[in-house]
Amino acid sequence: MATDIARIKAALLTQHIETPSWAYGNSGTRFKVFARPGVPRTPQEKIADAAQVHRYTGIAPSVALHIPWDRVDDYGALAAYAAGHGLRIGAINANVFQDDDYMLGSVTNPDPAVRRKALDHLLECVDIMDATGSRDLKLWFADGTNYPGQDDVRARQDRLAEALAAVYGRLGGDQRMLLEYKLFEPAFYTTDVPDWGTAYAHCLKLGPKAQVVVDTGHHAPGTNIEFIVALLLREGRLGGFDFNSRFYADDDLMVGAADPFQLFRIMHEVVRGGGLDPAAGVAFMLDQCHNVEPKIPGQIRSVLNVQQATVKALLVDADALRAAQQSGDVLGANAVLMDAYDTDVRPLLADLRAEMGLDPDPMAAYAASGYAEKIETERVGGAQAGWGA
Amino acid sequence: MATDIARIKAALLTQHIETPSWAYGNSGTRFKVFARPGVPRTPQEKIADAAQVHRYTGIAPSVALHIPWDRVDDYGALAAYAAGHGLRIGAINANVFQDDDYMLGSVTNPDPAVRRKALDHLLECVDIMDATGSRDLKLWFADGTNYPGQDDVRARQDRLAEALAAVYGRLGGDQRMLLEYKLFEPAFYTTDVPDWGTAYAHCLKLGPKAQVVVDTGHHAPGTNIEFIVALLLREGRLGGFDFNSRFYADDDLMVGAADPFQLFRIMHEVVRGGGLDPAAGVAFMLDQCHNVEPKIPGQIRSVLNVQQATVKALLVDADALRAAQQSGDVLGANAVLMDAYDTDVRPLLADLRAEMGLDPDPMAAYAASGYAEKIETERVGGAQAGWGA
Amino acid sequence: MATDIARIKAALLTQHIETPSWAYGNSGTRFKVFARPGVPRTPQEKIADAAQVHRYTGIAPSVALHIPWDRVDDYGALAAYAAGHGLRIGAINANVFQDDDYMLGSVTNPDPAVRRKALDHLLECVDIMDATGSRDLKLWFADGTNYPGQDDVRARQDRLAEALAAVYGRLGGDQRMLLEYKLFEPAFYTTDVPDWGTAYAHCLKLGPKAQVVVDTGHHAPGTNIEFIVALLLREGRLGGFDFNSRFYADDDLMVGAADPFQLFRIMHEVVRGGGLDPAAGVAFMLDQCHNVEPKIPGQIRSVLNVQQATVKALLVDADALRAAQQSGDVLGANAVLMDAYDTDVRPLLADLRAEMGLDPDPMAAYAASGYAEKIETERVGGAQAGWGA
Amino acid sequence: MATDIARIKAALLTQHIETPSWAYGNSGTRFKVFARPGVPRTPQEKIADAAQVHRYTGIAPSVALHIPWDRVDDYGALAAYAAGHGLRIGAINANVFQDDDYMLGSVTNPDPAVRRKALDHLLECVDIMDATGSRDLKLWFADGTNYPGQDDVRARQDRLAEALAAVYGRLGGDQRMLLEYKLFEPAFYTTDVPDWGTAYAHCLKLGPKAQVVVDTGHHAPGTNIEFIVALLLREGRLGGFDFNSRFYADDDLMVGAADPFQLFRIMHEVVRGGGLDPAAGVAFMLDQCHNVEPKIPGQIRSVLNVQQATVKALLVDADALRAAQQSGDVLGANAVLMDAYDTDVRPLLADLRAEMGLDPDPMAAYAASGYAEKIETERVGGAQAGWGA
Repeated sequence: MATDIARIKAALLTQHIETPSWAYGNSGTRFKVFARPGVPRTPQEKIADAAQVHRYTGIAPSVALHIPWDRVDDYGALAAYAAGHGLRIGAINANVFQDDDYMLGSVTNPDPAVRRKALDHLLECVDIMDATGSRDLKLWFADGTNYPGQDDVRARQDRLAEALAAVYGRLGGDQRMLLEYKLFEPAFYTTDVPDWGTAYAHCLKLGPKAQVVVDTGHHAPGTNIEFIVALLLREGRLGGFDFNSRFYADDDLMVGAADPFQLFRIMHEVVRGGGLDPAAGVAFMLDQCHNVEPKIPGQIRSVLNVQQATVKALLVDADALRAAQQSGDVLGANAVLMDAYDTDVRPLLADLRAEMGLDPDPMAAYAASGYAEKIETERVGGAQAGWGA
Repeated sequence: MATDIARIKAALLTQHIETPSWAYGNSGTRFKVFARPGVPRTPQEKIADAAQVHRYTGIAPSVALHIPWDRVDDYGALAAYAAGHGLRIGAINANVFQDDDYMLGSVTNPDPAVRRKALDHLLECVDIMDATGSRDLKLWFADGTNYPGQDDVRARQDRLAEALAAVYGRLGGDQRMLLEYKLFEPAFYTTDVPDWGTAYAHCLKLGPKAQVVVDTGHHAPGTNIEFIVALLLREGRLGGFDFNSRFYADDDLMVGAADPFQLFRIMHEVVRGGGLDPAAGVAFMLDQCHNVEPKIPGQIRSVLNVQQATVKALLVDADALRAAQQSGDVLGANAVLMDAYDTDVRPLLADLRAEMGLDPDPMAAYAASGYAEKIETERVGGAQAGWGA
Repeated sequence: MATDIARIKAALLTQHIETPSWAYGNSGTRFKVFARPGVPRTPQEKIADAAQVHRYTGIAPSVALHIPWDRVDDYGALAAYAAGHGLRIGAINANVFQDDDYMLGSVTNPDPAVRRKALDHLLECVDIMDATGSRDLKLWFADGTNYPGQDDVRARQDRLAEALAAVYGRLGGDQRMLLEYKLFEPAFYTTDVPDWGTAYAHCLKLGPKAQVVVDTGHHAPGTNIEFIVALLLREGRLGGFDFNSRFYADDDLMVGAADPFQLFRIMHEVVRGGGLDPAAGVAFMLDQCHNVEPKIPGQIRSVLNVQQATVKALLVDADALRAAQQSGDVLGANAVLMDAYDTDVRPLLADLRAEMGLDPDPMAAYAASGYAEKIETERVGGAQAGWGA
Repeated sequence: MATDIARIKAALLTQHIETPSWAYGNSGTRFKVFARPGVPRTPQEKIADAAQVHRYTGIAPSVALHIPWDRVDDYGALAAYAAGHGLRIGAINANVFQDDDYMLGSVTNPDPAVRRKALDHLLECVDIMDATGSRDLKLWFADGTNYPGQDDVRARQDRLAEALAAVYGRLGGDQRMLLEYKLFEPAFYTTDVPDWGTAYAHCLKLGPKAQVVVDTGHHAPGTNIEFIVALLLREGRLGGFDFNSRFYADDDLMVGAADPFQLFRIMHEVVRGGGLDPAAGVAFMLDQCHNVEPKIPGQIRSVLNVQQATVKALLVDADALRAAQQSGDVLGANAVLMDAYDTDVRPLLADLRAEMGLDPDPMAAYAASGYAEKIETERVGGAQAGWGA
């Protein structure tokens, strides 16, 4: 048992959870974006906030950028700035949905000039990867249609394939393309990459550096997400996660807040499929917005939630599970899983943090640090960052 | 048969479809609001646009206002302006979701000062009804919570009931309160009025002037909307519709665009339950946004879609239907309904328009009118209207 | 804290969870019902099995009957038989869906002769209540239609109201009618009691002895069940629960198996709304089928799952929660709830069982008892019970 | 225009719609299977009924078999019997879900002996294809799990892949394997082939004779089925359809009954993607059950509904549509589609039937034929066919 705990702690230390720069800015719904005091005005301030999350959790050493929201003149300098805060630059997220030209699509637009503009932006993102040392280009397309007949579904796939091929060809040897899918929104009738199958089919044709990203909020009701995770791991095509949670649509709530048991089941499949091994290349990223709660504590809590689900998954007695499964013992196999889930892992995680030289209670430690009050005082004037238009 | 057609045409002439002022402004999703040339800058320009819809359809003689988006100094003058364009002011829509104070709710907010502010706004809306001669106060609350535990579900109902009672007490003798429900968004975990049952329970306690509004886009997947319509008509509590359509969430697409058969079934229950009789007081209102299509033609098409579904519902052979239902003839009863639905009613509607002195093809007539080009030229400068924050 | 634990244990001892006689029979899907050795052939054998669940959990002292599946000549004798096994007869469940006459409905059938037959069955169930001392008549209607137009939605409501009124008038002073709703299945287009609003509207008209039953598996995707629970408690109309769980449709899985966090949130609203007080009259009933797992252990596990969620709900620090809610501390309020949920309550429950003179591990104790082997040996020949046609 | 009509009629004549033998037997839900007079007792009687559908529609010249439901001693004789009725044998449907051994899965069962038994059944189905001249083996697996942990998700994929490969290797040169997917039911937690992506991934590895079948009732809410159709046609992997319709789950209602506009959009993508060309190999099959309506008229109506959607899709003005799409005219492009949909195509289809020497009104002609009365009189005694266990 002592060995087990040591093994589990060692495994936990290999897991890194990336926070997104946009989580630190203002966000909201189409109805209203609520402004918060202390919200960053610059990419640098976002990085400083992300560093706080790493400081108290010890497992969030990278921050994802979003272009053009995080556009700067000197990306090398930005990476150095991050390094000075103990962080590295994570995935580069392309944005081809917030220009009036993209009303009817970006890389799938019927107008070739718009497609060219969108492709140029994607290629610019690879330049930024070169400059920042980022490994992953994360692609999410808002492209789709709102009305039946609005555009040709199949022609849009052809255009998408052409753009992806051009970007893939531009990738360096250690760089990857992570293709994300989403059921709906902002497109309402068709979405050009609506499900894992579509993303997978494109990745297959592109090559091994193209991988699928599972955003936990992007599925139809009733979809078994952990099944998809298991399948993509089996196919060697799980590039990573965009973690968040939802009750109904793509609500971008804190991961684990809506259905902690689902998050545990997902992490169980990750562990089962070898996805926790850093060599598997699975990127654990958050993609959330904090509309009504403060942003930095919201990120800390989210990182802790992923870690909590991971340790519960590591606690599953794999031998007992396999034995029960093999013998057709439905209740017994389920009980093995539930035993791990029902365990209160907070003491174990507090121990681990103490061993890492961290405060056992990251939420309390951050609250006591005075950082929130400091940025509220200092960050006055300027335009607050937001992921909205 | 000739008599039937005459009866149907007479019934159609009693149906008025109200367009919303906000449909003429810019709108979009949380990802992006796309700007359009020619979009109104003032409530007056919105009314002028609404008048175009009535001009070509002949059945859209009122326009709903949204406060504060349509706030003016002199509401009597605004009503006169509308009258000068052949329109009257329809429902007054309260907005208690776009102020930073409302982040955690308006009338259900835990803070009594915020609740008071929200209530004052609702009462102001009744003042505007007095000044404009509007009959209906339409209430939709964005109130709810994003996280389990965030607030006390039951206390919020108490606060809601208190505010509704205060507003109800302020209504004049001919004024009504229309209470709308919505499954989710912008609140993600609980919504304080999430379903027709909640709206109905509150209306029952308030009195006969409180009625439920069915927004066709506000239900969970799999919900049978026409059943709710039939039930509310049976209870005498169907105040009206907010028409739109959707494929997944509250997409605000043109009514009838996503599922024209559903719209027909809804209108069938309206006809069956006596809701087409003006004495029933059912308000047929559009509540849509045109994100990627032009606004005025989008409204014209929507009005025509409701009319088309209505005429099909009127074509149902009620005697044959009843006979088949009574005899347990499942296929026969279904066939009676489908016969009406499968009929091409466009010739009948073109005839009706000719008799009304209108162009038989409203979409073509509007396109040929030059109005779109005119407003694109004239409406330069100023701030375009939009329903977003 | 010691006081708290004592209070919690006392509260837990007042909670009784009723198991359904049909859970002990064979069940399945429309595709296949799998037969199990040892399954009961008679109502008496079902009661004997239910007694096992009470024996090991100590909190399941009643068993619900289903008529006609549990039809016997002498109901008084059956109640005495149950008493001899330490049980009382719980709710009487009417069944008006398994006769060829009911193909197009029972109490809502267009044919008055079929309606009369169905009503007679409901009245027979009240006779059985009289004979067995049962308090609750549980009504679930499979009635509805499969195709648009098949029957008149509104007329079916009239017929339903008429039947309910006749049954209500027959109830004794201490008897109640529990009306259940269900979104869909076996009817596919309309269901005559599809949602809590419809059940509530009928109960209101009937009187205080008519109460709504929440079956946790009977809602549309995205429905917030705990909100409905809170609302019905506020209205004094929550008659009880039919517990089970599901991933997609009405899957009748073990309660708490699909979403234990949801079950906790439901129990939190029960506790918050005073529903755990026996005086509130909330019946905690299981309504499940065990298709691929053994039946008695499936019931034991389900009872334990409800108890586990209840104790977690009792652990919520109500004062801290209220304070955080009042101050608008979104993350703090959520954390209070999650602290209770994340607690491992198995030791506390093991203690409680020891104090009750029970084995701390009911699943293991039942497995070791030899009862399963005994019934497999003894129950040979005869027709196994099943809830199917 | 005359040319267009001629072209459309010619295209319609190439479309064959296959009816399933099980549609003629009794069916129902897990709650009840209602018995009907006149229902077939043998495969031969089912074929005779299927011949009626072809007789009145002229476009249903084949009938699918279901093994073991349609097991006979001499399949060659059965094919000859069908030929004598003007029919050929269509797809062979394997059934590995109705044996007690399959409780925990068939080809994915943890027990290798059960897997072997299931595989043997699949290979037997290929033997039957050889004997009957059938081209297509349709595989739908009920395999999955009900509870988290019950079995190893990934290992089940390995077992599935192994079985599929064995069957694929046994196929003759002109034979195909059609792999069907289904979101849920009868498995409730995981389904081993839950979506098109999973089916597609397996087909890719097997080879060109493995194709995906789209059952229109097997998707999560909000899924855009026509998008999947367009995608699979683009990939050359659309093997065919199992047509039916539903409001909520896999309801097996008559195709086009729940959402005729969706069926039209599906057929629009079929036409757009070349799937109507017989060379494309897309099999148009019905997979429905008639629970509350008579079976033969239910099939006739379903065949007509597919034909009606097809002719509307053929009426779409492809040039006008492309022009509107290319110019970004959202409303215009949508209007082109709606113009075709709003057309009353019943006169055109009546003409076509007259030209084919058929009665213009197949439903009325069948009703007048006396066949229903005849089989009710003749088919007395014996065991009625049913798709249930």
